[in-house]
Amino acid sequence: MNTITVKLQNHSYPIYVGEQLLQNPELILSHITGHQVLIVTQANVAQHYLSILKHGLSHLQCNEIILSDGEQAKNITEWQNIINVLLQSGHERTTTLIALGGGVVGDVTGFAAACYQRGVNHIQIPTTLIAQVDSAIGGKTAVNHSHGKNMIGAFHQPQCVITDVNVLKTLPNREFISGLAEIIKYGLICDAEFFAWLENNIEKLLSRDISTLLYAVSHSALQKANIVSQDEKEFGIRSLLNFGHTFGHALETACAYQNIFHGEAVALGMAMAAKLSASLSMISLTEYERIIQLLKKSELLKVQIQLPSASEMLTLMMRDKKVRAGKLNLILLNKIGQAIKVQDIVEAQIASAIESIRTDKLLSVREF
Amino acid sequence: MNTITVKLQNHSYPIYVGEQLLQNPELILSHITGHQVLIVTQANVAQHYLSILKHGLSHLQCNEIILSDGEQAKNITEWQNIINVLLQSGHERTTTLIALGGGVVGDVTGFAAACYQRGVNHIQIPTTLIAQVDSAIGGKTAVNHSHGKNMIGAFHQPQCVITDVNVLKTLPNREFISGLAEIIKYGLICDAEFFAWLENNIEKLLSRDISTLLYAVSHSALQKANIVSQDEKEFGIRSLLNFGHTFGHALETACAYQNIFHGEAVALGMAMAAKLSASLSMISLTEYERIIQLLKKSELLKVQIQLPSASEMLTLMMRDKKVRAGKLNLILLNKIGQAIKVQDIVEAQIASAIESIRTDKLLSVREF
Repeated sequence: MNTITVKLQNHSYPIYVGEQLLQNPELILSHITGHQVLIVTQANVAQHYLSILKHGLSHLQCNEIILSDGEQAKNITEWQNIINVLLQSGHERTTTLIALGGGVVGDVTGFAAACYQRGVNHIQIPTTLIAQVDSAIGGKTAVNHSHGKNMIGAFHQPQCVITDVNVLKTLPNREFISGLAEIIKYGLICDAEFFAWLENNIEKLLSRDISTLLYAVSHSALQKANIVSQDEKEFGIRSLLNFGHTFGHALETACAYQNIFHGEAVALGMAMAAKLSASLSMISLTEYERIIQLLKKSELLKVQIQLPSASEMLTLMMRDKKVRAGKLNLILLNKIGQAIKVQDIVEAQIASAIESIRTDKLLSVREF
Repeated sequence: MNTITVKLQNHSYPIYVGEQLLQNPELILSHITGHQVLIVTQANVAQHYLSILKHGLSHLQCNEIILSDGEQAKNITEWQNIINVLLQSGHERTTTLIALGGGVVGDVTGFAAACYQRGVNHIQIPTTLIAQVDSAIGGKTAVNHSHGKNMIGAFHQPQCVITDVNVLKTLPNREFISGLAEIIKYGLICDAEFFAWLENNIEKLLSRDISTLLYAVSHSALQKANIVSQDEKEFGIRSLLNFGHTFGHALETACAYQNIFHGEAVALGMAMAAKLSASLSMISLTEYERIIQLLKKSELLKVQIQLPSASEMLTLMMRDKKVRAGKLNLILLNKIGQAIKVQDIVEAQIASAIESIRTDKLLSVREF
């Protein structure tokens, strides 16, 4: 088991990455201080792992909530329902919420923990690849609003993150592939060596070879922990993690969060950001081709949706949380392994990069 | 103008206490960094002060929301409405929310600021006595739930607090008197000299003499700022501020937040806590009499409600946020000017103190 520490001024916490961690209740019990827990999960995860988790907690008051399926569950109503159950079941300020699931479960549960009695403890047990390498780490919690993703939320750090790579075996293929986008992102924004490793190991990763997964997940979690430790509230370097995300969020909003997975949207967004970086001569054409090839090999550029037009994308991107005084800040690449924030890019150039990816023949329609 | 500083590890901010501060837009403008503001207020305050405040902000995008009246406005629906307006009006992460009103406005607005895009700036302009000396200071934000007061909320500190004592002139008498409870509380929990000053100046305070008000409000704000500066998240000394509040919250819940003002409930709660302190021989009977006399002179012990029974009160008190492992922690007095936290008090003794105040002939029904 690898232990990675998120080091913050007021609250540091461990990320445990290993095999069969769910079967080891001592790990989670060492981070529970009260006599009450509430497990929040979704049906597809619950069927595999809920009883294993509950087995180790049988001496505590243990309540559970099964959220509705998919990204749709990341809303104010489900969040309020968690708070209602906590109150109805008499949970005190010493309670611990446990998020057992992917990013949706982690974000809603974390936001409920942030607000219940002005903040209670929570533990993240991410069960999707994307949650293991990204969303479960760093304390960003939120629900969506019809006007935009993650518009209502809080920074609220967990007590620990328990990352069992064995649970990835039961993950549907499309969800697994979606998670690869954030792994590739770490290579692109801050680690050229890791990017090269991914180029060499993508097939083993796709086959879910356990030791390859352990390395990729641990290394990604380490990158995320390092960045969050430097800049918890995203005043500086943490914003580099948004590489591909401003484009990606616009894609997701255009699709009303349906028919596209977050990682797929981010992968298309990273392709657009890479194209824009190349057209601004920030990266070479060779680098651009390497990026597109890795995304393609990862099967991330196969989408089943009609992509929105460049002008529709731009309108949505202007609503992004990162817009300041009507100006779009974008994260682009200086080279593979180095991202920077760029301001004042001409809109026509952004539109041209979007259009180029949108109409590229490499995008193929895929059957799920 | 007095400037008091709340000194926190990551964010210190000023409380300005003075006269005619609303007429000085430079003060508020020096704490607004973006180009957008949203003023949240209630109708009774808006009629007197909204146009004065807006006058100084005319060069900014300025939206406004009038909440429904009274404590009922402190709910999830009003909170969500603030967030809807922010999104519909295109407010960016640099926006500033301005709470112009009493504790209800301050708490709902602060909680909306805490959650909008994971946290934006806000400024408190308290217009009731209770907000000026207590709720606008210290970053506790929340809305109520049918299962209890302040059950959903966050710690989120303002950029500054602008306290104009002139606005107290338009405050209805019952609301003004309610605010005196928190002022008396500071004397009781940490400042015997201030308690004696209050005994000597209660008539001038009740007549709203401006220089007396300036001293009482500034001194109370200073006490609150000092305590919050030592213990922002209430792990220790800040809990002393809850003196009278565990009883008081139970009274408010029993009345469904109707027909009793917060300060009235706190005053009755302080009388009960003082009675309990006396019956445990922690304070003398003379001290107990001084406390009851000051509360009585302040017209705080005139209530128009039928007080709930001791057993009903105890049931509600056990639901308090401060309950740990089913045990009630109460703040009691060692002497006038010194509060301490006490655990494991026999329930019958708590019930007897409640019953004693409940049936005391000094409680008189009052006409409003």
